[in-house]
Parts: sequence; structure tokens; C-alpha cells
Amino acid sequence: MSHYYRLVVSCPDRRGIVARVSGFIAGHGGSITEASQHSDLEAGRFFMRYEILADSIGMTVTELHQAFAPVAREFDMDWALRDTRRRPRVVVMVSRESHCLVDLLYRWTAGELDGDIVGVVSNHDDMRGLVEWHGLPYRHVPVPTEDKSAAFEEVERHVEAFQADCVVLARYMQILPPRLCQRYAGRVINIHHSFLPSFAGARPYHQAHARGVKLIGATCHYVTEELDAGPIIEQDIHRVSHCHTPEDLVRFGRDVEKAVLARGLRWHLEDRVLIHGNKTVVFA
Amino acid sequence: MSHYYRLVVSCPDRRGIVARVSGFIAGHGGSITEASQHSDLEAGRFFMRYEILADSIGMTVTELHQAFAPVAREFDMDWALRDTRRRPRVVVMVSRESHCLVDLLYRWTAGELDGDIVGVVSNHDDMRGLVEWHGLPYRHVPVPTEDKSAAFEEVERHVEAFQADCVVLARYMQILPPRLCQRYAGRVINIHHSFLPSFAGARPYHQAHARGVKLIGATCHYVTEELDAGPIIEQDIHRVSHCHTPEDLVRFGRDVEKAVLARGLRWHLEDRVLIHGNKTVVFA
Amino acid sequence: MSHYYRLVVSCPDRRGIVARVSGFIAGHGGSITEASQHSDLEAGRFFMRYEILADSIGMTVTELHQAFAPVAREFDMDWALRDTRRRPRVVVMVSRESHCLVDLLYRWTAGELDGDIVGVVSNHDDMRGLVEWHGLPYRHVPVPTEDKSAAFEEVERHVEAFQADCVVLARYMQILPPRLCQRYAGRVINIHHSFLPSFAGARPYHQAHARGVKLIGATCHYVTEELDAGPIIEQDIHRVSHCHTPEDLVRFGRDVEKAVLARGLRWHLEDRVLIHGNKTVVFA
Amino acid sequence: MSHYYRLVVSCPDRRGIVARVSGFIAGHGGSITEASQHSDLEAGRFFMRYEILADSIGMTVTELHQAFAPVAREFDMDWALRDTRRRPRVVVMVSRESHCLVDLLYRWTAGELDGDIVGVVSNHDDMRGLVEWHGLPYRHVPVPTEDKSAAFEEVERHVEAFQADCVVLARYMQILPPRLCQRYAGRVINIHHSFLPSFAGARPYHQAHARGVKLIGATCHYVTEELDAGPIIEQDIHRVSHCHTPEDLVRFGRDVEKAVLARGLRWHLEDRVLIHGNKTVVFA
Repeated sequence: MSHYYRLVVSCPDRRGIVARVSGFIAGHGGSITEASQHSDLEAGRFFMRYEILADSIGMTVTELHQAFAPVAREFDMDWALRDTRRRPRVVVMVSRESHCLVDLLYRWTAGELDGDIVGVVSNHDDMRGLVEWHGLPYRHVPVPTEDKSAAFEEVERHVEAFQADCVVLARYMQILPPRLCQRYAGRVINIHHSFLPSFAGARPYHQAHARGVKLIGATCHYVTEELDAGPIIEQDIHRVSHCHTPEDLVRFGRDVEKAVLARGLRWHLEDRVLIHGNKTVVFA
Repeated sequence: MSHYYRLVVSCPDRRGIVARVSGFIAGHGGSITEASQHSDLEAGRFFMRYEILADSIGMTVTELHQAFAPVAREFDMDWALRDTRRRPRVVVMVSRESHCLVDLLYRWTAGELDGDIVGVVSNHDDMRGLVEWHGLPYRHVPVPTEDKSAAFEEVERHVEAFQADCVVLARYMQILPPRLCQRYAGRVINIHHSFLPSFAGARPYHQAHARGVKLIGATCHYVTEELDAGPIIEQDIHRVSHCHTPEDLVRFGRDVEKAVLARGLRWHLEDRVLIHGNKTVVFA
Repeated sequence: MSHYYRLVVSCPDRRGIVARVSGFIAGHGGSITEASQHSDLEAGRFFMRYEILADSIGMTVTELHQAFAPVAREFDMDWALRDTRRRPRVVVMVSRESHCLVDLLYRWTAGELDGDIVGVVSNHDDMRGLVEWHGLPYRHVPVPTEDKSAAFEEVERHVEAFQADCVVLARYMQILPPRLCQRYAGRVINIHHSFLPSFAGARPYHQAHARGVKLIGATCHYVTEELDAGPIIEQDIHRVSHCHTPEDLVRFGRDVEKAVLARGLRWHLEDRVLIHGNKTVVFA
Repeated sequence: MSHYYRLVVSCPDRRGIVARVSGFIAGHGGSITEASQHSDLEAGRFFMRYEILADSIGMTVTELHQAFAPVAREFDMDWALRDTRRRPRVVVMVSRESHCLVDLLYRWTAGELDGDIVGVVSNHDDMRGLVEWHGLPYRHVPVPTEDKSAAFEEVERHVEAFQADCVVLARYMQILPPRLCQRYAGRVINIHHSFLPSFAGARPYHQAHARGVKLIGATCHYVTEELDAGPIIEQDIHRVSHCHTPEDLVRFGRDVEKAVLARGLRWHLEDRVLIHGNKTVVFA
């Protein structure tokens, strides 16, 4: 099966970037199968993502990395290059609600994700059976209200031991400590069960019901130290009416949450999400 | 053409309401062409809306009103009865953005609204030509920043002179004084250009752009004294991405705004919206 | 926990039906928690669904059935009355695509369905592990191309042995013989992977890709002898573009299919779907 | 105000196209403000669209055209280059339904369209007032059932006299003769009031109602000689239920039609739609 080199770039916008990068790749005989770029005129910043057929270019990813480095320096690029054979390792963290986990496990086994779930960490033991049936390790780390720091040290050790490239909070319902947020900055994805910035914080569906909104939503975003305020990757909504109880909203919400989280994670794993400040460029 | 009597009821929930009301109508030979009801189990309140073929019942709307009054008292009803031949009179208030007004004028002439636009009030003179071409009176009432009270007194006189049943703020961009909000409580409909409660206040599309949301929205709601906090009638959204500038958001927003306002107004004019506290029951 | 009696009625439209039925229920002290009705003016037919708090009415479902029968005769009703404690038994039939089955199993275990999955029948053995892990029996009935009749006799025996109230074709990919369609008329639900009536028949996503449509869809419908032509319960769509391959359409389609099937089945199990000719009334 | 050169290319896919084109533009100092490309791997065809800041490149559009021609030959390109100061001229054709025309006139006056409406042709005289109020010429060309050819010769003369770059059938309700289809191939845009390929032909909303679908739609497509079968530009849908009459479907449909047509036309005028066979690439 074909594999690809994915080049992702963010740099100050100026003339000739595309010519320089595409010229470099063409010069090495590279065949570009997918190309996306975006100029943020307001911020004066340029973003690009190239998918290059690996066999078309006579170099390993390491060699290509070295060869491209001078170009990157020339344009002051933040950049990454990845061989798609090196699949990202994903750790999923859950609490008691299983819908997002069930959905991600299905998508992983169906080959929809460009990465591998390698383990699950939870503050409850409820989903051990499900996870182990999928052949995955399950780490139960209770998080006592009175002292969370020891628990999160253990969580961090597990995440590290799993060699996680990406951590997914699939309705984990605990606030990560700043240390973890920083260490895995840009690599922790959360699903918030509201249409942010509406109804940040706890029990958003009950807040939504109390306000009488006609649409509820969910938001997939990167986790930062400020609660529910990180860069948004994806959002979607579901229509509700006066007929619906808070419990109905929770039920509809589950469907939106899992769809939004799956899209956000998929794009992240395919290197389609570029963070800039508190916003994202998503080459979906 | 057939006309109808519309009976709209809100009352404490208890057994036998439907039987009593439908029995009353059947007892008078009434033919119900559309019936909706809702029990809010949490609030213990019952809502209903009946559309009765007028010719099927041998009474004028006044006679029916008198005949039904004892039933209403028995169940402690808030209620209204309307003959659809008596079409509600709508005053539209606008500022400089014409999209909602153009849309409402089209729908009115196309027969989509169960009421009549009878006049337009604006703090600018820009849309006089359009409005007068439709054969409608246009009242230009500038609202100076330093003293708005005299202006709003004039606005109120115009609204009164138009014998308005309903006032639509079709991007009016001015905050109505409490006196007007109270006097026309439950009869002033606003379109807010955000997915409330997100981005209340000014320049919501710019707020949305700054936050990097992936969906923008609009909200049709009744105006109350608290800004952007009245009962929500209808909401909808439009998908956006990193490609879109604040100007794009404004443009997409216009389409959402006019669609949401048109639906909200249509339902209001068809007596499909029942207010309860800060929420609505919408028998759409 | 509360249980309910659900009364579902379809009859020729005439005055006084609601009064008669609601009067009957009120006369027995019944508390109606949800009521829906619809007059099809074109067809001259009336549809209603009442949800009655069982404890509010001093009768068993059998007694209530007997008591209501004269009313039903008077109005020439097609009707059904069900105690929600008697949960419908659902048999799911699958082929090799697991997404709908995984989704239904999750929803069943999460308590989203007003019925119980009691067994799975498949023409392949692939999903035995998943099904048995959920504690459910799995019946593998290969359907050889050359002689399907013996296979379908076995299928029918299994469905019968499961005492199925409802059969769900969750991407079963085989055409049911007329005998089964008739025997379980109005109780076999299929998910078709296109926005019917577009792209009936085989490989609809490839048909859609070839036609260059910008939206793909899925349709949940009752199975009748005519392929893909039965009464439609629910439909939904997903936006696609020139970027997407037939494989992408298949992947997007899976999400639409499972959502649409889940909604359709849920409504069916809650007695919210009334069939009339080749159309449905859905009191969602 | 800035103007742009838009370069649109379709050619056989091979390595180095992007490098060659972007290198050419960079070599002339050109600043690319928006770039889109797509490789259709199945068809082996490459599509691109560049928006170049005119002032950044020291050439007129004619000079740039000449300079680029050798590159285009080298890669066997179908291509076009346009200066955005040369605004496309749009002729709108209507029958008796005004919703699409009203909407397009609003968008034109609001500056949403990257082109100019220069005249309206109709087989009825109903919309003369509206059109002339907008300061546009109105040509009334009745199309008698018994002999349409003379009428369409007159239509063609008007379209020619208007120097139309693009013809919009905004619910024109007449089938254009092959001669006109050929002459303006890829430049006649129609709005069909169904979700094609469902319900091609006449009275699609009545067809949809009869089939009992739960979604209705509209399709914006290029007109070809085969009725309702040309390349699709855009589609959208609206949810319907058993409550809705064919008249309701017509009303909902109007909103979908005008939204879909406006998007399709806007993209066409911005050179975002590339036709390939019977499909489109839309760089929206």
C-alpha cells in the first residue's frame, strides 16, 4: 500500500513560498496528491499542507527532512514532516459515559482513523470489559476530590508509558492540571458538550434547557490551561424544541458529541489541523 | 376562502383539559383542522392550540369567546381566540441593513405571512424608496445618541398610529426603552445576529471570528427589558471555516438572519408561539 | 418506574373524534402525558397517538382494550393499545458491515431504545464475537446465490423462534422474499444507503459519485415486496464535494445510515410511526 | 480598490504543474492571495484556481495572458485568465415565480455578486415593474405552445444584445432549445426544484409529496441538451413531515431554491466552478 510524506507549514506570509516549496518537491521528482494552503491576510500568516507520494521521491523521511530544512529556515517556518507509516499513538481518557469511546473504538477497528488507539485511562472501572475485549490495556486511576495531584501524576506516567502522541478526552469530566496541558500542548483533544462559547462549565445541557435554546451543540477543541477556551477544531448542532427534556438533550447531545469528536480527531491525526494563536486552520 | 378560529391556551396542567375543550368544540359542531398540545411536566403547565373551521361552528368569534369563557375560568386559563379574517398588523423597524426587510416584503406580497405589514419605521431614510414602492408608509425617526427619549416617544406614536399588533425589529440596531418593551410585551420580535447566548451585544460576527468558532448563527426572540435575553423563538446556524473573513461571516449571517426571522414571525402571526416565563412553546 | 398505555389510532376523519377519545380517557381518570394528532385533509383520514399514565387509569391494558373497543368500532378505527412494560422484541439482520449493528447495540445498552434486541441473524459469521459479547444469540444462515429459498425458510424459523415483534435490516444486503415481507408487513425496517428515490438498487454511493451530486443520503423505510419502495420513515443527508472518492462517500454514508436507522427504529418502537398507504405519519 | 487576475486551469495530471505555475507567477513578482487545487486521481486530471493581486504583477491581463500561454501549452491546459475589473454580465430569465429574481436583485444591489445583472427576459410580463424599479431593462417574449422556435430566436437576440456572459434560469419553466444550450454551453445556470436525480421533470414537489419523502431539495446545475441532467453545482435540502401539504413544500422549496441558486451563481461568477465531463469541481 502507498504511503505518504506529509509536510505541514506555518510561516509569515510573503511572495514565493508556494513556488519555493513546490519547486523543491518537483525538483526531487515528488508527486503531490493533495495540497492545501491558506493566507490569513489579517494575521499576515501563511499555512500549507502537502501530501506527497513517498515512492515518487527518492528519499527517506529523515533525508527529506534534512534536505528541506534550509528552505524552512529561509522562510522562518514552523513545520513538520511525517511519514504516514509512522502511525500516531492515541490514548483515550473516559469517565462513565461510554458513547464517545464506543464510537472511537468502532472507527479505529473500521480503519477510519489514521492512527492507533493504544490504551484507555479512566477514573472509573466501568469500561474495562469493553476496552479489554478490543485487546487494549485499561488503566483505572481514581481521582479523589480531596487530592488530585497524585492521581494526575499516575495518569501522566500511564500516558507516557503508552508513548502517546495524542490524548483524547472522550467525556473525561475531569479538569487536567496545567502541567499536563503544557506538556501535551496541541495534542490533547477534548469534546465539550455545548456549542462553545455558550454554556461553558458544568451541565451544559441543563443550562441550555433552562435558557430555552432551539439548538444544542458540541465543540471539539484543543485543551489549554483555561477551561473550555482552547482553539476550536469542530462544532455541530442538533435541533431541539419545547418537547424535549434535559434528558432528551443529553441523548441528542451524545450523537453530536461523538460525531464532532470523531471528525476533530480524524483531522488531527491526518495533520489537517494547524493551530495559530487561539484559532485553527482546518484543511478538511 | 375558509377562515378559522384559533384557540390558544396555557394553563395549569390537570386531567380532563383536552376532553373538556374538545368536547366543548364538538358540542358546538366544530371541526378541528389542526390541534397541538404540550404538557410541560417540569413546570406543571399545559399548552394547546386548536384551529377550528369557522363555518363548522354556528357562532361569531365574539359569541364563541363568550361561550368558552366559563371553560377557561374553570381551568384558570390564559387564553386567546382569534378569527383569522382579522389579520394582525405588523410594523417593521429597520436601520441601514435591508436584507431582512426585503425578505419580509417579498414574503408578505407572496402571501407567506398570516398578517399584513402596515408600515416601516427607521432611524435612517435609506429604505424609503423600497418601502414606498411597495405602497407602504415610511416613518423616518432619527435617534440622536445624546437624547433618545424624544425619538422613542415619536416611534411609539407611529407604532400606535399604525395600530400595530406586532413590531418586528428587522436589524433595527437600537435598544428599545423599557416603556416600549413593557407596552408591547410578547409582541416585539427581534433578530439577533448570533447564536444566543453566545456573543450577545455588539458586533457578534466579529466576536465569533475572533473566537474562531466553526458555526455562526442567528436568534429570533421576543424583546424584553434585558438586552438579548428574551424568550427564544427560533435559531439556526451556518458553517464557517478559517477561510472566511468577518465580512464573509456578515454575508452568511444575513441569510441565516432573514430565514430565522421569517420563520419566527410567521409562527408568531399564526399564533403558534406561546410564551411561558423566559421560554417558548412553538407549535411549528 | 412509571409505565404507560399507548393508544394509536387511524380512522376516517370526522368531527368529534378527539372529544370522544379524550372524553373516554378523562372519564376513566386517565392522565394523558403526550398527545399527537394529524388530519390528512387530502386523504380524509385522522391519526392520533396518546400516551396515558398507566397508574392514573384503574384498569389493566386488557380491560382498557375491552372498554375502548366500542369507541373504536363507532369510528371505524384501525387501532392498537400497548402497555409499555411489554417491550417489543427486535431481531437485527446484518451482512458484513458492522456500523449499524454496533450503533444499535450501544443504544440498546444505553437504554435509548424502547424495546430489546433479542438476537442477530446474518448470512456471514463475522459479527458473532461482537454479538455474543453482548450476551445475545447469533444465527449464521448463509444465503447461497443459487438457492435462497431454503435459507430464507431457516431465517424465518429463527425470527419466529425469537418471537420478533420487529425485524431490522441493518445493512443486510439481501432481498427478503415476498412471503417474509407479507408476514411481517409494517414490522420490517430497512436502511437504504441513498436518498431515495434517487439511486435505488445496488452500490448507491458509486451511483451518486458518478452523477456528481453534492449531497448523499440515507433512507429508513418499511420493507415491502417492491424493492426500496416502501413507506419512508426518516431520511438525512451529508454534504460531499469533488474532493471525495466513492470510499469517502461510503464512510460518510455510514454515519448517516446509522443515525437515520436509529431514529427510525426508535420512533417505530415508541409507536410513533403510523403507516397509511405508502406514506407514514411520524409523531416524532 | 484592489483588483485581481484569476487563473483557472484544468489539465492532465502530472508532476510539477504547481511548481511550474507558481514559479511563473513568483518569477513575475505576483502575490497569490488565494490558491486551490485538486487532483482527480480517478480521471487523471488536475484542476487549479489562483487569485493573484493585480498590482503585484507588472503586467496587464493581456500581457499576462501572452506570457503564460507557453506554460499552458507545455501542460496541455484548458485555461482562462480574467481581470476582476471586467465584471461578467448576467441575464436572468424568469417566468411567473419571483422569489429567485427578488433574491438575486437584492444580492446584486448588496454587492454579493461578482458580476452585474444587465437585463431580464421573461415569457410573462408580471415582473416588469420590479425589474424596471431596479433600473434594468425587461424583455417580454411570450413562448406560445404551438410554435416556440420564433420565440427562442427572439430570446437569443435579446441575450446577445445584452452581451451576456452568463444566463440564469431563475425558475424560467421553459426548456431551452439545443441551439441555445450549445451556444452558451457552461454558461447557462438553472435551478431545478428537486434534489436531482430524484423527481426530474415537472411538478417535483407534488412528486415528492406523493412519495412521502422526509426531505425536499433543490439543485443548481449547468444546462445541457439533456433535461435536468447537466453538471451539478450545488444542492441543498429542507426537512418536511406528514403535516406538510404540497403547497407547504412549494413554500419551503422557494427558500431552498433561492439559496442554492445564489450560491451556485456566486461561485460561477467568481470562477470557482470548473466543469469536467458531467461533473463539477467547486473551489468554494
